[in-house]
Amino acid sequence: MKVLIVFAHPEPHGQSLNHSLFKVTIDELQKLGHEVKTSDLYAMNWKANVDADDFTAFDKVNDRLKINAEREKSYKNGTLSKDVLEEQEKLMWADFLILQFPLWWFSMPAIMKGWADRVLTNGFINVVSVKKNSPAGLFKGKRAMLLVTVGGPERSFSETGVSGDTFDLLFPIQHGILFYAGYQVMQPYLVWLANWLPEESFEKIADELRERLKNLETDEPIPFRAHNSGDYDEKTLSLKPEVLNPNVKGLRVHLRK
Amino acid sequence: MKVLIVFAHPEPHGQSLNHSLFKVTIDELQKLGHEVKTSDLYAMNWKANVDADDFTAFDKVNDRLKINAEREKSYKNGTLSKDVLEEQEKLMWADFLILQFPLWWFSMPAIMKGWADRVLTNGFINVVSVKKNSPAGLFKGKRAMLLVTVGGPERSFSETGVSGDTFDLLFPIQHGILFYAGYQVMQPYLVWLANWLPEESFEKIADELRERLKNLETDEPIPFRAHNSGDYDEKTLSLKPEVLNPNVKGLRVHLRK
Repeated sequence: MKVLIVFAHPEPHGQSLNHSLFKVTIDELQKLGHEVKTSDLYAMNWKANVDADDFTAFDKVNDRLKINAEREKSYKNGTLSKDVLEEQEKLMWADFLILQFPLWWFSMPAIMKGWADRVLTNGFINVVSVKKNSPAGLFKGKRAMLLVTVGGPERSFSETGVSGDTFDLLFPIQHGILFYAGYQVMQPYLVWLANWLPEESFEKIADELRERLKNLETDEPIPFRAHNSGDYDEKTLSLKPEVLNPNVKGLRVHLRK
Repeated sequence: MKVLIVFAHPEPHGQSLNHSLFKVTIDELQKLGHEVKTSDLYAMNWKANVDADDFTAFDKVNDRLKINAEREKSYKNGTLSKDVLEEQEKLMWADFLILQFPLWWFSMPAIMKGWADRVLTNGFINVVSVKKNSPAGLFKGKRAMLLVTVGGPERSFSETGVSGDTFDLLFPIQHGILFYAGYQVMQPYLVWLANWLPEESFEKIADELRERLKNLETDEPIPFRAHNSGDYDEKTLSLKPEVLNPNVKGLRVHLRK
């Protein structure tokens, strides 16, 4: 497979848990025979903020900036900035996407959110309909996975844990971004207590990660209901009453049963 | 009251729905006799990415960057960068915090995530315990509210809507950030179909917003269970079985009943 790893961590190479796991991932994937490309956002000095500089044909003096329209127009005309175009090319190239980041305030660090905001732009990511059998998202047939280090302990993120359930916390990313864009989303790979790990437990985590990476092609994805499966009503944009399971509530209603 | 509005939108003043609503909010709050400060993140050219430049005493040549430790140390020693210190001062000043942004990929734009990542730093936001009657978060007694424009229609964000329920999508911000930091969190003010609003409907929305702003001091907050209420078990960091309502699942388990 062709694998793209988008990576966000500010500590320099070789010094942090995240960079060590990044390196383990690259090495293991190559050992398994996969081709690997990376977007190491901090090393690239990635610009996080969407602004007029994203649009090379935009006239800052005379044009009125309407972000959504400008994004779509610039995508169509090939006038998005070079850094964005390069990321879009990598995404088209890859069969498998890994987003690796530390969980900060229960979400991605700003630099990775800015990667999503700027790269997954209108026009490139086409609007997906809930109409039955309508076209799926751009990356149909591809797979994606989050690799996330979490400062806190796993029990705090259980179904009734004070931090909120991981499935729910990651839903905006896993369902809202990745699944919407057409990816089959694998279960996330989570490293707990990342700020408190003793050095000697690193090899155990690295070995577990290597095991997981061996199964990327055969793992079962999170069973989200496809937008175009017919489960959603075209008018209400909500699940049809007859497909609901009365025992399931919250964001898990979007899982197949 | 003293109100701080943190605002994130890239379009220039006077040209966009978001800026118009920002101006309506400032004007109305002042008319009501409140003091208002603002952090217009795009106008401030806010740096979104956490990095070594956040720590003025950090020696890039000789020190090893350990982000969490550096954040805490720099907070204690008063060596966080000037932009971060100014935002922390504004937060200490304000009785009421409004975060205004467009919903991009089901969350905050990167520039605002970077405001949270950099300003709400270790040490400043102290770790909150679930131990009964332990100290509440830093901003105890203060209130906060999200003011969010959403491109899509409300029905898509219903409890079974294909985008996910708004309560769940905003939980990482409303509970994970604001409530954890001690704020009482008001119901969010949401403007739907923000990309498709005809000009003539603006005044209606502005009037509704003005009405809402009149009630900021008396509105009922979202009834999240306090971390230190005794509802959470100190060992499991999860809700005690006896406080659970068997009919409530998903992130709503964290609401009082």
